[in-house]
Amino acid sequence: MGDASAKGLLPMKQFMDKDFLLNNDAAKTLFHDYADKMPIFDWHCHLSPKEIYENKQPEDIAFLWLAGDHYKWRAMRGFGINEKYITGDASGYEKFKAWATVMPYLIGNPLYHWTHLELQRYFDIYEPLSEKSADRIWTAANDKIASGGFTPRELIVNSNVSHLCTTDDSADTLEYHDLLKNDDSFKCKVLPAFRPDKALYIDQPTFIPWLKSLEEVSGVKINSYKELTDVLLTRIDLFEKMGCRASDHAFTYVPYNRATPDELEAIFKKALAGEELTVADNDKWRTELFRFFAKEYAKRGWGCEIHIGAMRNNNARMFKSIGPDTGFDSIDDREIAFSLSRMLDSLDAEGALPKTVLFTLNPKDNYVLGSMLGNFQSDEAASKIQFGSAWWFNDNLDGMREQLKALGNLGVLGKFVGMITDSRSFLSYPRHEYFRRILCGMVGDMVDGGLYPDSDMELLGSIMQDVAYNNAIKYFGV
Amino acid sequence: MGDASAKGLLPMKQFMDKDFLLNNDAAKTLFHDYADKMPIFDWHCHLSPKEIYENKQPEDIAFLWLAGDHYKWRAMRGFGINEKYITGDASGYEKFKAWATVMPYLIGNPLYHWTHLELQRYFDIYEPLSEKSADRIWTAANDKIASGGFTPRELIVNSNVSHLCTTDDSADTLEYHDLLKNDDSFKCKVLPAFRPDKALYIDQPTFIPWLKSLEEVSGVKINSYKELTDVLLTRIDLFEKMGCRASDHAFTYVPYNRATPDELEAIFKKALAGEELTVADNDKWRTELFRFFAKEYAKRGWGCEIHIGAMRNNNARMFKSIGPDTGFDSIDDREIAFSLSRMLDSLDAEGALPKTVLFTLNPKDNYVLGSMLGNFQSDEAASKIQFGSAWWFNDNLDGMREQLKALGNLGVLGKFVGMITDSRSFLSYPRHEYFRRILCGMVGDMVDGGLYPDSDMELLGSIMQDVAYNNAIKYFGV
Amino acid sequence: MGDASAKGLLPMKQFMDKDFLLNNDAAKTLFHDYADKMPIFDWHCHLSPKEIYENKQPEDIAFLWLAGDHYKWRAMRGFGINEKYITGDASGYEKFKAWATVMPYLIGNPLYHWTHLELQRYFDIYEPLSEKSADRIWTAANDKIASGGFTPRELIVNSNVSHLCTTDDSADTLEYHDLLKNDDSFKCKVLPAFRPDKALYIDQPTFIPWLKSLEEVSGVKINSYKELTDVLLTRIDLFEKMGCRASDHAFTYVPYNRATPDELEAIFKKALAGEELTVADNDKWRTELFRFFAKEYAKRGWGCEIHIGAMRNNNARMFKSIGPDTGFDSIDDREIAFSLSRMLDSLDAEGALPKTVLFTLNPKDNYVLGSMLGNFQSDEAASKIQFGSAWWFNDNLDGMREQLKALGNLGVLGKFVGMITDSRSFLSYPRHEYFRRILCGMVGDMVDGGLYPDSDMELLGSIMQDVAYNNAIKYFGV
Repeated sequence: MGDASAKGLLPMKQFMDKDFLLNNDAAKTLFHDYADKMPIFDWHCHLSPKEIYENKQPEDIAFLWLAGDHYKWRAMRGFGINEKYITGDASGYEKFKAWATVMPYLIGNPLYHWTHLELQRYFDIYEPLSEKSADRIWTAANDKIASGGFTPRELIVNSNVSHLCTTDDSADTLEYHDLLKNDDSFKCKVLPAFRPDKALYIDQPTFIPWLKSLEEVSGVKINSYKELTDVLLTRIDLFEKMGCRASDHAFTYVPYNRATPDELEAIFKKALAGEELTVADNDKWRTELFRFFAKEYAKRGWGCEIHIGAMRNNNARMFKSIGPDTGFDSIDDREIAFSLSRMLDSLDAEGALPKTVLFTLNPKDNYVLGSMLGNFQSDEAASKIQFGSAWWFNDNLDGMREQLKALGNLGVLGKFVGMITDSRSFLSYPRHEYFRRILCGMVGDMVDGGLYPDSDMELLGSIMQDVAYNNAIKYFGV
Repeated sequence: MGDASAKGLLPMKQFMDKDFLLNNDAAKTLFHDYADKMPIFDWHCHLSPKEIYENKQPEDIAFLWLAGDHYKWRAMRGFGINEKYITGDASGYEKFKAWATVMPYLIGNPLYHWTHLELQRYFDIYEPLSEKSADRIWTAANDKIASGGFTPRELIVNSNVSHLCTTDDSADTLEYHDLLKNDDSFKCKVLPAFRPDKALYIDQPTFIPWLKSLEEVSGVKINSYKELTDVLLTRIDLFEKMGCRASDHAFTYVPYNRATPDELEAIFKKALAGEELTVADNDKWRTELFRFFAKEYAKRGWGCEIHIGAMRNNNARMFKSIGPDTGFDSIDDREIAFSLSRMLDSLDAEGALPKTVLFTLNPKDNYVLGSMLGNFQSDEAASKIQFGSAWWFNDNLDGMREQLKALGNLGVLGKFVGMITDSRSFLSYPRHEYFRRILCGMVGDMVDGGLYPDSDMELLGSIMQDVAYNNAIKYFGV
Repeated sequence: MGDASAKGLLPMKQFMDKDFLLNNDAAKTLFHDYADKMPIFDWHCHLSPKEIYENKQPEDIAFLWLAGDHYKWRAMRGFGINEKYITGDASGYEKFKAWATVMPYLIGNPLYHWTHLELQRYFDIYEPLSEKSADRIWTAANDKIASGGFTPRELIVNSNVSHLCTTDDSADTLEYHDLLKNDDSFKCKVLPAFRPDKALYIDQPTFIPWLKSLEEVSGVKINSYKELTDVLLTRIDLFEKMGCRASDHAFTYVPYNRATPDELEAIFKKALAGEELTVADNDKWRTELFRFFAKEYAKRGWGCEIHIGAMRNNNARMFKSIGPDTGFDSIDDREIAFSLSRMLDSLDAEGALPKTVLFTLNPKDNYVLGSMLGNFQSDEAASKIQFGSAWWFNDNLDGMREQLKALGNLGVLGKFVGMITDSRSFLSYPRHEYFRRILCGMVGDMVDGGLYPDSDMELLGSIMQDVAYNNAIKYFGV
């Protein structure tokens, strides 16, 4: 239903030109005169503080694009490329060539736009990438890299990033954060974010090794749940000292199964003894330990990010061969509303609910989360409970639009803390531009279509700037 | 995907002008020449028959807008407004000013359109509401109210409402309905709708007080399930006498767990004794009592409205402070298909399935419900099983379009019983206009885009009038 | 949100003309110059090989349209038509007239477009069908039928179908496939597809009769699970010999509950003895028997189609009266991600995962399936794991667009194996045209909107041809 468009009577738009995704004057004004002028606060990413500190020159575009990007790896596998040319021992050139061959088939895929945004913004290359253009682009891009400007710090600064938050294990020493903090030459503030997933995932093989590393880094032998939380508190204090303003949690679903201290001690002992934990054990552990964390975040005014709905490591064969985070995760579809509500309420009832950002990987939950926010708002912050931007498998045109529509319909879009890259790549900042174009495109369409007035474009423009940058700065208090 | 629009080469539409949401000649014709000419039958709302009967003059626009509208309260909380200016002891002016400040940030929120439709239709005010215009609009609107036309009955009649159904507890005396029925001076028919939720929610603290009120109003001591249904039958007869044509039920999910009379008696005894009921107890009680009700509706030709998917009172702290229906509800996400199918089939198999309108609060279930309809249609009524219009958190541009699309794809859109306000506000009738614009806008786009013929616009216009009004009149038999 | 369209300033498109669904030059080029030129490979349908072989002349358009099409029956029931005029003893003319009366009310329903595509392509009739035009169209269509070209084989050949796969029970003799294989006069290749649902649905009343028919056709008495799989293997070999390249499975949800051979023997014995099976029994049976089948498919390079999410035979009264597949099925909404992942992984881990096409009936699962694909791709085939086209209740404009968007965002759209009719009607081939128009319309919108380059339309056109035809030919290896 609803097919009226320009009917071929208006000239075609040029491919990804300066008005990419901006289809009318209102959209163009909002983007070019307002949103695009803002710096970037990338408050959730997976960049390595070590790599930022060491600031090495990358060898070539194959390294920058294909050494670690499991989004591209998945697309290549979907095309039928042999693993040799993905994560195997083929040369960088061969991998780049394979990637270029896949490109034209990725119709409607965000990788198609990301790749060309990166070519345009970092390499001044405006030719579409395909098997035919691969050699030309390989040479031009590598020449450009060799001519400088492609170290991590240069890429960050040239992308106008004022602040970024990495994602750091709760047992991390934060030594590179400390070094960066004391390096006045680098103008971007690099802050740690506290990610205690390994503490919460007591059923995973990572738990005992993580516990040992925590004992090591803290110098404390941990024999009980009580001692564990005592040590974790010292870690939270260290993170705070290093400028941390956010934590991050991954949940397939947010559990809510309350437990007594004695139960938690028993679960901890079972885990230490290598006994199998029940679903209830895991839920209880995660419920109470998360509640412990959340209360500490609330005390410190940290934002608590909750990423819901990833089902990880689905392919046992490939997990054995190349490990986690290599492109074998997908979307879970469990019920999430009731236990999430109970968890947030249990904290709110004690006056201990932190600022919280709820992300979902399953778009079926957009309206569940969008309506959940309203249950726990307060005047502690503008939109204290936030609906996180479209993430991972939703980080594309359609996913972002659906998230913005759900948030617009159910919440206060003008107080949204906006985009994050969630990326491991130093070339990923154009995703903020992509988001801003989508946002201004949608709002511009509303103005152009008579759905929102054009009588105060300065105010509307300033709201676009808030969503692009200011809201997040204020929300996290950096 | 799919971004071709007018590309900025066509003039901007004026903000919410007479062709709001109507983007081509077909849409304009369908709305202006057909749908807009119809009266309103608001067959589900939460207006108070007492307030309609008493017909008091409202004090100001703050009272009309902010005294009871939890949609607005949620939006204000999401902006970070202190509760004092929402449900607290701030003045009407202060609350209005706070609301005006929030407005421009509600980009994409239905409140933005509803507010301006109400300003235009009831107050002749065409200036967008914001902090800047707040004082001007406060004065102009209150002058207008003082000049008359804003009592409940005036608002109803001037909104061209021919019939409306309130929502009435099964223990209600219907005294105001009786008074209104006998008041020839008021041209709108005000009918009760039977809502026995308090009987079904045997596990809630409301059950025993409700039971006492039922005993009181009926003069019968109720000692058993059997006696309960006997008394409820007398209530149904009273509602019928007062012109009732519809019942209403709220279910998180429609249960289906059959029970014997003995089991029901045992559950009733447990409830009277204050014992805790199990999930199975509750499901059995609700299953059989709902089946009892449904059969009675079928006998009387009533429409049975089923609202699925609300998760209520999520915030215990605020519930203690200001009670239910204050903006702390959200969307549930449980599985609903199987038990709903079994419930409807169990009634159909006995020839006792009433006309039924299925509403969902979770848009993930649009296609589940849209396809469920087809399982139980018959020639007893055109679209005997209806897919209720987009409701509450879906009562917005996107939600209504998605519901209309799902219904169009899976059912017979031309036999849809259409819009209801579901509102507590006497100013909410422009939501019918909003719905009609969306409907005619979508159908107009189809005609304009070559997806539906323009060869018989009179027939198509008459179908728009059916959906706007006639279908509901016929379906409920008022 | 997002309402900018052509704003009524551009001329209306004609109803379903040659550029139906094609709104710009790019879309027109992709469809007319590329996709439309391709033959059809209808790799999943429910045509009867017997009817194809016997090739009888149909009596009239009522027979062709209304004798077996439960999509139309549902729509008629939704309008309130009496069953007499649907599946009852009314005349063909009366049924046709009833159908014509319903038509104009099916705004937004795919039946509206399918019906007119069929009138245009097979009957050269361009007048919209309604009560008013019914008699004219009845006469013209029946004259056309009488003049020839409407036998099954003529319809197939004139629709440019090069290959088609029927759906055949595992106990089928395939005698008509054998006859067709040896009939050189018929240019379309008709292949069987292996559908062993009756073996998997051990809890259904169909199981024992099916088992007896399998014993009969194989001449083997089956006393154990082991013997059952031995006999089924002989069936698979027969299907292979008859050119089978695909299997088909219907699952409400794909189970994953592993069982030992002894457990399977016990379940089989219970079933033979007529004892009630538990949910776990059924899940175990289906898990292991499906795994048995899947490994055999993998050995033979067959594609394994999995249709998830149908909830069948919801109306017991009508089931008793007119049986299955008569329009009383709807969409299930269970969780599917976890067990599906475990099932696919269990096969992949053994190197025994066949090429697999995952279909969902519930659009809430579009992103679950779209992301599941990526977990199990490999270089054995381009997009070895496929996301099946929008099916049954999603086989409409919106459903197809949503499926294409999800696949585009998450996978490799250019390697999609594309459309199938899934139909029982010899007039259903225009659904391939409909799909191709939607596909080219969407991709054309991207080109027109600057989202995909127009620099190599030949390559893009060839990708459209791949999705329309070539990919499926290659994937199934016909």
